[in-house]
Amino acid sequence: MRKLRFALFGNVFQAKKSSSVQKLLCLLEERQADLQVDATFYRFLTEDLQIAVPASARVIADDDFEADFLISMGGDGSFLEAARRVGDKGIPILGVNMGRLGFLADVLPEDIEEVVTQIYDGQYSIDERCVLQLDYDRGTPEGYPFALNEVAVLKRDVSSMISIRVDINGEYLTTYQADGLIINTPTGSTGYALSVGGPIMQPGSRTLGLVPVAPHSLTVRPLTLTDDTEIALTVASRNHRFLVSLDGRSEKCSEDVRLTVRKAPYTIKVLKRPGQSFFRTLRTKLMWGTDPRE
Amino acid sequence: MRKLRFALFGNVFQAKKSSSVQKLLCLLEERQADLQVDATFYRFLTEDLQIAVPASARVIADDDFEADFLISMGGDGSFLEAARRVGDKGIPILGVNMGRLGFLADVLPEDIEEVVTQIYDGQYSIDERCVLQLDYDRGTPEGYPFALNEVAVLKRDVSSMISIRVDINGEYLTTYQADGLIINTPTGSTGYALSVGGPIMQPGSRTLGLVPVAPHSLTVRPLTLTDDTEIALTVASRNHRFLVSLDGRSEKCSEDVRLTVRKAPYTIKVLKRPGQSFFRTLRTKLMWGTDPRE
Amino acid sequence: MRKLRFALFGNVFQAKKSSSVQKLLCLLEERQADLQVDATFYRFLTEDLQIAVPASARVIADDDFEADFLISMGGDGSFLEAARRVGDKGIPILGVNMGRLGFLADVLPEDIEEVVTQIYDGQYSIDERCVLQLDYDRGTPEGYPFALNEVAVLKRDVSSMISIRVDINGEYLTTYQADGLIINTPTGSTGYALSVGGPIMQPGSRTLGLVPVAPHSLTVRPLTLTDDTEIALTVASRNHRFLVSLDGRSEKCSEDVRLTVRKAPYTIKVLKRPGQSFFRTLRTKLMWGTDPRE
Amino acid sequence: MRKLRFALFGNVFQAKKSSSVQKLLCLLEERQADLQVDATFYRFLTEDLQIAVPASARVIADDDFEADFLISMGGDGSFLEAARRVGDKGIPILGVNMGRLGFLADVLPEDIEEVVTQIYDGQYSIDERCVLQLDYDRGTPEGYPFALNEVAVLKRDVSSMISIRVDINGEYLTTYQADGLIINTPTGSTGYALSVGGPIMQPGSRTLGLVPVAPHSLTVRPLTLTDDTEIALTVASRNHRFLVSLDGRSEKCSEDVRLTVRKAPYTIKVLKRPGQSFFRTLRTKLMWGTDPRE
Repeated sequence: MRKLRFALFGNVFQAKKSSSVQKLLCLLEERQADLQVDATFYRFLTEDLQIAVPASARVIADDDFEADFLISMGGDGSFLEAARRVGDKGIPILGVNMGRLGFLADVLPEDIEEVVTQIYDGQYSIDERCVLQLDYDRGTPEGYPFALNEVAVLKRDVSSMISIRVDINGEYLTTYQADGLIINTPTGSTGYALSVGGPIMQPGSRTLGLVPVAPHSLTVRPLTLTDDTEIALTVASRNHRFLVSLDGRSEKCSEDVRLTVRKAPYTIKVLKRPGQSFFRTLRTKLMWGTDPRE
Repeated sequence: MRKLRFALFGNVFQAKKSSSVQKLLCLLEERQADLQVDATFYRFLTEDLQIAVPASARVIADDDFEADFLISMGGDGSFLEAARRVGDKGIPILGVNMGRLGFLADVLPEDIEEVVTQIYDGQYSIDERCVLQLDYDRGTPEGYPFALNEVAVLKRDVSSMISIRVDINGEYLTTYQADGLIINTPTGSTGYALSVGGPIMQPGSRTLGLVPVAPHSLTVRPLTLTDDTEIALTVASRNHRFLVSLDGRSEKCSEDVRLTVRKAPYTIKVLKRPGQSFFRTLRTKLMWGTDPRE
Repeated sequence: MRKLRFALFGNVFQAKKSSSVQKLLCLLEERQADLQVDATFYRFLTEDLQIAVPASARVIADDDFEADFLISMGGDGSFLEAARRVGDKGIPILGVNMGRLGFLADVLPEDIEEVVTQIYDGQYSIDERCVLQLDYDRGTPEGYPFALNEVAVLKRDVSSMISIRVDINGEYLTTYQADGLIINTPTGSTGYALSVGGPIMQPGSRTLGLVPVAPHSLTVRPLTLTDDTEIALTVASRNHRFLVSLDGRSEKCSEDVRLTVRKAPYTIKVLKRPGQSFFRTLRTKLMWGTDPRE
Repeated sequence: MRKLRFALFGNVFQAKKSSSVQKLLCLLEERQADLQVDATFYRFLTEDLQIAVPASARVIADDDFEADFLISMGGDGSFLEAARRVGDKGIPILGVNMGRLGFLADVLPEDIEEVVTQIYDGQYSIDERCVLQLDYDRGTPEGYPFALNEVAVLKRDVSSMISIRVDINGEYLTTYQADGLIINTPTGSTGYALSVGGPIMQPGSRTLGLVPVAPHSLTVRPLTLTDDTEIALTVASRNHRFLVSLDGRSEKCSEDVRLTVRKAPYTIKVLKRPGQSFFRTLRTKLMWGTDPRE
């Protein structure tokens, strides 16, 4: 049997769900896996929940981990955070959802044993997800300049809208008068972009979404672009400031900075189990199977 | 001839439009009107534009004016500001739009002479517009707690959404997970609320709109309520703060404050000329008469 | 005890739900109610389901019934049909939903005993719902020219859109290029109009909705009008024909007919139980309380 | 100089625009082009408008034409009709719009001379547009089973919705309860699909849109799929019939037929002039450059 390396990250969860995690740890120990556990998550498991983490497990400091798989225990937010920490390392991520099924964290706790077996048997495929990269024309973004779901520019602290000039591959598109503008990947199409009327994009679509938030003009509609597009944003606002948000991590920006958003040179690898289906997730999570008025 | 009193407010406008204002001042002087001019606007007219304001005109300080009519020279933003300053004085407002036709500022500069004649001939009617009143359960709003267009609660400075619990006349409605929530009057239905999918409400409809901004739930839709409704808002946010905005004037608020929005005990009176029509304004401003794709 | 008269209408339903109806019949018989049962429904109950209908019950032919209450056993569709048959008789309608909760048929079978008690104890109120009336300028509509939910004009049998000129109280509004146009009451705002983006209107709002279906112009939005409005429709279509639909009952119309829609001179009375709430129905039926993505 | 062959199609247009066509004919005659004119269009030009068509021109019967270029004189509707007649012949189409600028017919009459020069100088590129192919599992569609804009299934002649089960590459997606469902190409994304909330898709996006018309469920949203997808549709309706529409050409269908929509094995070639831009067309036709409320 191969010796597989697993990095384990996660968010706080309810104590009553401890057994799933305990089970996972036992299964991996049995298979003599190399286990690396995020420091904060390790403290939560051992101190708050009194879960027994195998003594052989190494505690991860400063994102110093090397693994064959990363397991994220938490919701889609935890998955996004895990993706940020994996960065361009190319480690496939598996999201175990401690709450209800997520779009990214789509493994249920009760399936953990089956999943571990599937991983060791090589019964899975890898979904490569497009990542967005953000550049400033002066200085650099403060935080990690990549996003798996979306990059958004948003008005800040005032209720008046901002003006967002967009150039696509050097060609002028339009200037949005809006509360903000979202540039999303197919992965992000079921997130924030969906809340403001963006289309759901099948994973694997080689497209980006451009979806305004509360646009003043009534003729402005969501737009999808091919994913080899370079999108330049020039923002003007009454208070000369605005917010830039990457997967919900927001930072302040001043309006003399010009932003460029493009596809990152790496992808995030998502572990996909046999029989797993985006359409089933749509039906389950968006209740496409049921009609609330019937 | 009656001696009519006019208060004159306005925003900065382009010098090339001076003649309209000069004309208005001459017409009112000829008719020996009592003229009161807002101090800031007075300086703009006399210093920046070198317009001759009649010597008899009184300069208004501290909103100390008493008039039969207020003339707002500017766009819909100026009109909202004029409405704030009129408050419950019951003075009818006439909006002369120095730019393009507005929903509130719907008199064009070239019609000024005709309008003055109509006013002196009593050829006009008065449209009473519902106003919203905002109350806090502790402390009081910092600014003027009334709005002609809308009261909005909005997320602040972060990109994560806020949670807004709404009770209608003491009965629980729902808890919105959203970027914000707009409560608008019919007057405000062509403003911010329209940008996020709210319906256009005919002036005189005795209804309020409740329109979420970027709601997380896909089943949440705009709602109209009768205007005798008391709407209580309890907001929770990750950073424990949010923004309250009244007609675009925003102030910060902390989440332990419970807000109540209801119809104010007074209305704003809008001077309506013969032949003036909300539907015509819709066709002109929203281009309902033209089809961009034909 | 008063002798109350009940008319009983309904749709076919599953045999396993027979007991609720049997229960209702027994309860009414015990109280010596005057019972009148719709002929078709009577056959369904007695022949298909072998339910024992009290011998004293009269079978209704030709809508010849006089009652203090009408009980509709079925979904919202059955309720609309019951409303058509009540017409201007002023008989309050109670909708017992044999399937899932409806907006109109909002009594669950398990509450039948409680409801009967409440009716005999006078523990209920009456909600008066606005009805729409349709008139043609030549000839008359073939079917019953009233609607509780909506009047719609729709394209017919071709995929090209129709052109719908609308005049409001004799004043031109606009000409929609669309698949159709819906004029709905507050009651109808949770029906067809909601599917095409119309707002939800609180029952008792004295407003009508004007909501286009697939409008060609991107600036056209749902509009609410005061309910004392007369709406004239002039339709043009490539094949000179279109459909008129009243609560889903559709008839063909030729384009030289001008339609007028206005509030009918009567209302439909809906029996409302103590504690019943429109907002609760919203939460339950539209799942405003739950978030499918959480 | 090469001898180029041109096929000329068109719709009726206003007599005052004759000179543009006359000019085009003269320019092509000067260059000794091989000219083929659609029979119906030929009669319109020579009989109704008295335009002199070169004697060397051949009149096209039964779509029997072979050309290097097809020039469509008319709007986007004429272009779609031209595309139908070109089919898989691979002839590039140039759309001269006799009315206002179109998305497909995007050459203005005043630019005709310049365009002819550009064609002869080889100063153009070819945009390849994805085409949809429709198949029935029994029998065949009556009309031409290909569409450049969209395939739609729509309810027929009644106002009740239809039920549309969708399978994607053999996997169940969902069952729409709606007035209809549109499957559109990027080219069609600015057409019917846009009217019902579909996203605008950049030409060259390798995606298809799946956009419901008036869906009953509030959680159903527009979806984009990769264009190598096979979409199977199974429709059920109360009257057992529905309409199938290809680029607006509609035919009746009975509900026991299962439809399949996929990318056709050929593309439509659109002649693209230097400097021509989809984004400019968006700004011009959808007025993205202007704000109707400002």
